[in-house]
Amino acid sequence: MPSHLALLSCLLVLLLSLDKFLLHYLKKRLFSGPRIPSGTSKSRRPMAAAAKWSETAMLVIDMQKDFVDPAMRSPMLVAGGEAVVPAVAEAVAVARERGIFLVWVVREHDPSGRDVELFRRHHYSGGKGPTVKGLKGAELADGLVIKEGEYKLVKTRFSAFFATHLDSVLKTAGIKNLVIVGVQTPNCIRQTVFDAVALDYEKVTVLIDATAAARPEIHLSNIRDMKNIGVETPTLEEWRR
Amino acid sequence: MPSHLALLSCLLVLLLSLDKFLLHYLKKRLFSGPRIPSGTSKSRRPMAAAAKWSETAMLVIDMQKDFVDPAMRSPMLVAGGEAVVPAVAEAVAVARERGIFLVWVVREHDPSGRDVELFRRHHYSGGKGPTVKGLKGAELADGLVIKEGEYKLVKTRFSAFFATHLDSVLKTAGIKNLVIVGVQTPNCIRQTVFDAVALDYEKVTVLIDATAAARPEIHLSNIRDMKNIGVETPTLEEWRR
Amino acid sequence: MPSHLALLSCLLVLLLSLDKFLLHYLKKRLFSGPRIPSGTSKSRRPMAAAAKWSETAMLVIDMQKDFVDPAMRSPMLVAGGEAVVPAVAEAVAVARERGIFLVWVVREHDPSGRDVELFRRHHYSGGKGPTVKGLKGAELADGLVIKEGEYKLVKTRFSAFFATHLDSVLKTAGIKNLVIVGVQTPNCIRQTVFDAVALDYEKVTVLIDATAAARPEIHLSNIRDMKNIGVETPTLEEWRR
Amino acid sequence: MPSHLALLSCLLVLLLSLDKFLLHYLKKRLFSGPRIPSGTSKSRRPMAAAAKWSETAMLVIDMQKDFVDPAMRSPMLVAGGEAVVPAVAEAVAVARERGIFLVWVVREHDPSGRDVELFRRHHYSGGKGPTVKGLKGAELADGLVIKEGEYKLVKTRFSAFFATHLDSVLKTAGIKNLVIVGVQTPNCIRQTVFDAVALDYEKVTVLIDATAAARPEIHLSNIRDMKNIGVETPTLEEWRR
Repeated sequence: MPSHLALLSCLLVLLLSLDKFLLHYLKKRLFSGPRIPSGTSKSRRPMAAAAKWSETAMLVIDMQKDFVDPAMRSPMLVAGGEAVVPAVAEAVAVARERGIFLVWVVREHDPSGRDVELFRRHHYSGGKGPTVKGLKGAELADGLVIKEGEYKLVKTRFSAFFATHLDSVLKTAGIKNLVIVGVQTPNCIRQTVFDAVALDYEKVTVLIDATAAARPEIHLSNIRDMKNIGVETPTLEEWRR
Repeated sequence: MPSHLALLSCLLVLLLSLDKFLLHYLKKRLFSGPRIPSGTSKSRRPMAAAAKWSETAMLVIDMQKDFVDPAMRSPMLVAGGEAVVPAVAEAVAVARERGIFLVWVVREHDPSGRDVELFRRHHYSGGKGPTVKGLKGAELADGLVIKEGEYKLVKTRFSAFFATHLDSVLKTAGIKNLVIVGVQTPNCIRQTVFDAVALDYEKVTVLIDATAAARPEIHLSNIRDMKNIGVETPTLEEWRR
Repeated sequence: MPSHLALLSCLLVLLLSLDKFLLHYLKKRLFSGPRIPSGTSKSRRPMAAAAKWSETAMLVIDMQKDFVDPAMRSPMLVAGGEAVVPAVAEAVAVARERGIFLVWVVREHDPSGRDVELFRRHHYSGGKGPTVKGLKGAELADGLVIKEGEYKLVKTRFSAFFATHLDSVLKTAGIKNLVIVGVQTPNCIRQTVFDAVALDYEKVTVLIDATAAARPEIHLSNIRDMKNIGVETPTLEEWRR
Repeated sequence: MPSHLALLSCLLVLLLSLDKFLLHYLKKRLFSGPRIPSGTSKSRRPMAAAAKWSETAMLVIDMQKDFVDPAMRSPMLVAGGEAVVPAVAEAVAVARERGIFLVWVVREHDPSGRDVELFRRHHYSGGKGPTVKGLKGAELADGLVIKEGEYKLVKTRFSAFFATHLDSVLKTAGIKNLVIVGVQTPNCIRQTVFDAVALDYEKVTVLIDATAAARPEIHLSNIRDMKNIGVETPTLEEWRR
């Protein structure tokens, strides 16, 4: 048993020191490819780039101060969040260049907390709590701004599609493909991604280094599960090529 | 045939001159009672008044300038809307006295119109259109204000429950009964009411003279259909007793 | 007042004797046209017939014995239902000729009634009740059959879209237009239609004489309200041309 | 780098040999407790056992031959599924003793595959495919049967709540707590669990050894994520005490 423990300790050290190089390395070694047979993707019609991007939306999820800015001292802070703000900003810049429809998905809650998940309501009292509408913690992280023509979508649960009109806005805009960035991988990212698959979006892409979780192994295990239902998981660098 | 036409003309004159007296009169004469057998309501446990009101929410629907204020010259103006503003205000006052949870349901649309029903999108251009978020037409009618502790719910379709988190807010607040006021009867009122029945609220009440449509016969035929699925339809006066 | 009563009595006699001729007549005289400006429909691209029908689905709603066959003595019998069975059968035949995707929407309930609307649960006891799954009352009316390649969709509320996966089946099949037949107009027909509009189907058509309600005036007032949100309401004859 | 690889290899061996003992061991060592502060659970009213079970439902998810019986040679076979059939059967027996409401959640698809997720439709042709309604693969695993008074719920996506009427059936039955068993952890189990939390069920419990995934590390990483949003994860033995 002690040797097992030793092994596990080593693994944790290893995972916690993950850098971009290792991320790539692990992706190639550990993960089996997506389980969609090659025939499926081949059968997709070749798309001119312009057409492709006009049918693509980027969902920027929960990039709010209470989630990614340690200065807010929010109980909802995502440990790995601050580190991906630059990557998210860059992904947004690429999306704008390509004419991709940008949707800024944010949580905004009533000061009473009455529209928060039950297991988090104890964080709300005296008109304060994480991402209360109008308070500073609900604002986008420094450096991120919503430009004209982009869309702000307010949600109150993990998934951006749960009890919102997002699917309608996307489908009537002709959107078939989604690119997801933001925080955090096991909750809002993954639930949005699984709902997107359930809602029949043709291609769902998660930028693996413009998304984050509390710890790298949480991030990676969720990326693995998403790959297993046909989600694409490039790095920002791979996606921007 | 000419005599039929004469009859119809008379009927239209009659309907268009409907006043409160006639409204009551028609209610008693024309409508068969609700089709719920008396046993059903009898079997409901007797409630102390206080308990009853703590399990009741009032939904105030679409009482925005573009729907009820002729001065806005909105294409969405509901002809009968302005006339019920005082009754809605009074219903709200009664609800506050009783400690009923107040939910202000409003439409707020993106300036682009991309979150509007397809058949109304032609009303949106140049960043303007009915109830665009931030514009004057989206404000509540004069005399109506949201007080602290009350809830604002934004929707983009007729029903207050369609693609919103309203059901969650109400159910987790222990709400079992709904009272509906606002505009307009055949669309937002009725769709909200039918969804409330589908969502298993125990008692749904529409205040017949604190709701309105473009024309009295439209209002009345919809009240009839709602009664037929077990909805209660008192006047404000009857309800406040 | 007595003269008003006399007028109303006459109107009821008149409405109850409505025949096809009068139906057409009323449609032209009483109803203002749909409120979509002509520009909107003009802007729709002209479609080759074949393409149009491949993007069209027909929803046949609740054509089950308990709703339309008086011999069942069901409390859910729709008074006007039996009379439209032949028209529904004919509409189905036309849809098959045109290659329109047919969806048979039916209610099927648990013998316990636990998945029925609250206001109708008193109809269920001893394993029996309207349209209980497996019982005769849940079968399609005589003369109606589901053929291979057609789809059966089970629902438990008025709208065929409420808490079902119908929207997914239709949208991934490329369906943009819906044609609705069946019973009954104020409940299952209308709620399905309003949800279809909320769900952004481009064109929603209700065949005015292949749908029915308990009484003609109920049928007509609901047709009027559907026209007012842009729904097309031809007769079967007009639609088959 | 090679030493990293060695470590990883060791870890895989370790994980693949996980047995019940290790499962318990890891649970205690690796996982931090749920992030709900103790105050939250303390504030829950103490419940008499009988009352508690009458407000509890067990969801038995996807225990169908195509998912858990290797003899079916289904592409949807869950590697770890067959091994938990006895635990699921035992959990069901305990639930029946306690009077817990049992819901059997199953996938049943159209032979055309038109109601399957896009990324799996290639498995359907010639009227065959995983869990096609009426075929043997859609049947419950040997030894599992639905008894009178229990409920069968058909779904077409991962989550038992997605586009189904399950929430209505549970809420109107007074259900506040859910116990989840079946396959497979990262998809149908987890998505059902996350939706249950989003839908405000007070207590969601996953029986950690009556659920399974393709590989132990997939199972465990998903259990970890569910714990992190307040889900309880006892073993069957712990739960039955």
